[in-house]
Amino acid sequence: MAVQTVESSTSNPTVDLGPAAALSCRECGHRVPLGPVFACEECFGPLEIAYDFSAYDAEELRKRIEAGPSNIWRYAPLLPVPADVADKPNLNPGWTKLVKADHLARELGVEPGKLFVKDDSGNPTHSFKDRVVAQALEAARAFGFTTLSCSSTGNLAGAVGAAAARAGLRSCVFIPHDLEQGKVVMAAVYGGELVGIEGNYDDVNRFCSELIGDPAGEGWGFVNVNLRPYYAEGSKTLAYEICEQLGWRLPDQIVVPIASGSQLTKIDKGLQELIKLGLVEDKPYKIFGAQAEGCSPVSTAFKAGHDVVRPQKPNTIAKSLAIGNPADGPYVLDIARRTGGFVEDVTDEQVVDAIKVLARTEGIFAETAGGVTVGVTRKLIENGVLDPSLTTVVLNTGDGLKTLDAVAGTGLTATIRPSLESFRAAGLA
Amino acid sequence: MAVQTVESSTSNPTVDLGPAAALSCRECGHRVPLGPVFACEECFGPLEIAYDFSAYDAEELRKRIEAGPSNIWRYAPLLPVPADVADKPNLNPGWTKLVKADHLARELGVEPGKLFVKDDSGNPTHSFKDRVVAQALEAARAFGFTTLSCSSTGNLAGAVGAAAARAGLRSCVFIPHDLEQGKVVMAAVYGGELVGIEGNYDDVNRFCSELIGDPAGEGWGFVNVNLRPYYAEGSKTLAYEICEQLGWRLPDQIVVPIASGSQLTKIDKGLQELIKLGLVEDKPYKIFGAQAEGCSPVSTAFKAGHDVVRPQKPNTIAKSLAIGNPADGPYVLDIARRTGGFVEDVTDEQVVDAIKVLARTEGIFAETAGGVTVGVTRKLIENGVLDPSLTTVVLNTGDGLKTLDAVAGTGLTATIRPSLESFRAAGLA
Repeated sequence: MAVQTVESSTSNPTVDLGPAAALSCRECGHRVPLGPVFACEECFGPLEIAYDFSAYDAEELRKRIEAGPSNIWRYAPLLPVPADVADKPNLNPGWTKLVKADHLARELGVEPGKLFVKDDSGNPTHSFKDRVVAQALEAARAFGFTTLSCSSTGNLAGAVGAAAARAGLRSCVFIPHDLEQGKVVMAAVYGGELVGIEGNYDDVNRFCSELIGDPAGEGWGFVNVNLRPYYAEGSKTLAYEICEQLGWRLPDQIVVPIASGSQLTKIDKGLQELIKLGLVEDKPYKIFGAQAEGCSPVSTAFKAGHDVVRPQKPNTIAKSLAIGNPADGPYVLDIARRTGGFVEDVTDEQVVDAIKVLARTEGIFAETAGGVTVGVTRKLIENGVLDPSLTTVVLNTGDGLKTLDAVAGTGLTATIRPSLESFRAAGLA
Repeated sequence: MAVQTVESSTSNPTVDLGPAAALSCRECGHRVPLGPVFACEECFGPLEIAYDFSAYDAEELRKRIEAGPSNIWRYAPLLPVPADVADKPNLNPGWTKLVKADHLARELGVEPGKLFVKDDSGNPTHSFKDRVVAQALEAARAFGFTTLSCSSTGNLAGAVGAAAARAGLRSCVFIPHDLEQGKVVMAAVYGGELVGIEGNYDDVNRFCSELIGDPAGEGWGFVNVNLRPYYAEGSKTLAYEICEQLGWRLPDQIVVPIASGSQLTKIDKGLQELIKLGLVEDKPYKIFGAQAEGCSPVSTAFKAGHDVVRPQKPNTIAKSLAIGNPADGPYVLDIARRTGGFVEDVTDEQVVDAIKVLARTEGIFAETAGGVTVGVTRKLIENGVLDPSLTTVVLNTGDGLKTLDAVAGTGLTATIRPSLESFRAAGLA
């Protein structure tokens, strides 16, 4: 992937992204002004947002948040967005339901009242991607980009297309040319450019990096490439919402799916911020990572005690998690170990079973990624790794309507003639 | 359909459904106690809920609502549900986004800031059906029913299955046996009984009515049959939310899809209640009904100046609106005429075009029913019937992911090789 750098300086006065003060290298700490860059000019490490929260008073901040809108912008003071973000046209994602899942708790052997599902299928395009794209959109506006772009094989394409449409920006999304027709339709309906690349997903990514370095890509914001530092921060809002919805309390345990690993690391960042800001009591919490066995580079490394993640070739129905070489894998290992968590994986069969269990017990129809987290939660409880007496939050990051194939075997429980006799004979009374 | 009646009396002290005082016949005004009945014993007219709102003070009520949860239960004081409804496991639908649709406004020639889309795809199972089923669920609990049931060909099946799962009730949903596999999966995943009936939708309905009158159906609540008076009230919440989200103001114009016509009549009921309670200023508003040309019995009657609706055999892609003999048709005609509105229809081609326009301008991917309302809005403006200078709310009642076939023609805008040369040649830069 092409690496872009900028000259270091202390600030960029033309960019208003609220409390975002600079970009800071996660590896070496080198700081550069806010800009559309993602890799450190010194060490090529990933850049992330550094904030100035120094002016905040905990009690005032809490009140301000609680008086805010029913979406992620209630947390605008903690995000790389301008203060007036809620007034601009955007999809206003977030503030999704935290469901007290007592029936699922009974099924998994968790104490009643202790298990919650954070259901991000309630977002505008029905996945957590709306949270991250909304941040990238603000960065794109701040940097004067006119085209919002990404490489994608699924959820992200729709999220970018929809966000650009609402904002009145052009969008151009790159996908492998032979993607399933259903997924193409879900992305194409928003009317942006949808370009099929003759090649696989790696080819698509390589081409996007080339385009960023070329004059042809001028004015293009790739949400998950040159806008990645901003984009990634959107996952912090999951941490904020969970704590606020628990009554400004940290959960004891949280189960997060791993694709690139970015979501898990940003949830940890969000929880740490709430502690430092005094919005929640400082107490231990454990973060658990969840993968599908068919793409389990991080859980494999975790169980082997390794610090590095060996890439795998994905082969799982959990397509939205199928990143064989997860960029944030080492950070995920750090966090799981530091917090006393674990990284586990489940088979595709267990994923399907978990989707059905969640739907049957709580009426939540999850994407395969939700089957992964629920399945892993069950496995961690059975293995004695996750404590069923503590407050536990399981993430569902997407919607079952997008991965219908996973449960295609589900069907009629009976077929009868339209008569009471036939009804009784079927044993349904 | 079998008609059930109960002995009339003044009250039913064992049933706590909050402010719901009795059932009242819409035709003759005859009152009966709250119970699982839907037709008047005197004249066979439809029963609806009569409330006792006499104790409410406008200012106190408004504050109580605003302090309530971010779902329909903020309006519990105005619904046939017990006061503690929010504490029980249910899907907590509602409080969906009212989107200021400035790009769509520009496209349709509406004054900026005046056009809004009420986007009910944000509900838990992604259609407005969650609102009505949630009311039926509370009635089922109040009457001691243990099975939640319905006849359905789509959205309702999923809404009932999910609601029953969350509540811990059994569900049994009846559908035509030859429904498309995708729709079967969406309904079956919640794990309830899903029974295919050898016959068409009329056969399914006839069978359900038989079952209600038979001992085999004892303890069964059919949300859209014997619980219909409760169920229908859920649509009032659309009116409440729209007004509250407009800052406790009535919209000037509102465009509502017509299937049975129940939603439109209950929205009018909700607006009237807000006026009478003093929560909004009393001023004129116009209600417009929207149908697909392939199932347009109400718009046909409206334009012909008839008071009765002649049944049609539906033939449209807007399946969720395809009720050829709409029970509330005459009431819809009354309301459209009384308020100075209109009932219009659009072709399937215009429906598809409107789905694309809404997605392209606002990033909202609507079900075919949403294409009907947006398409009709455009037509009403073009014909000078709807005033583009007034505040207008258009309903989107469902999610495009459930009717992907309607836009199946949408696809890639270009296919290129993974090279800048190929990119430039495609004219995408």
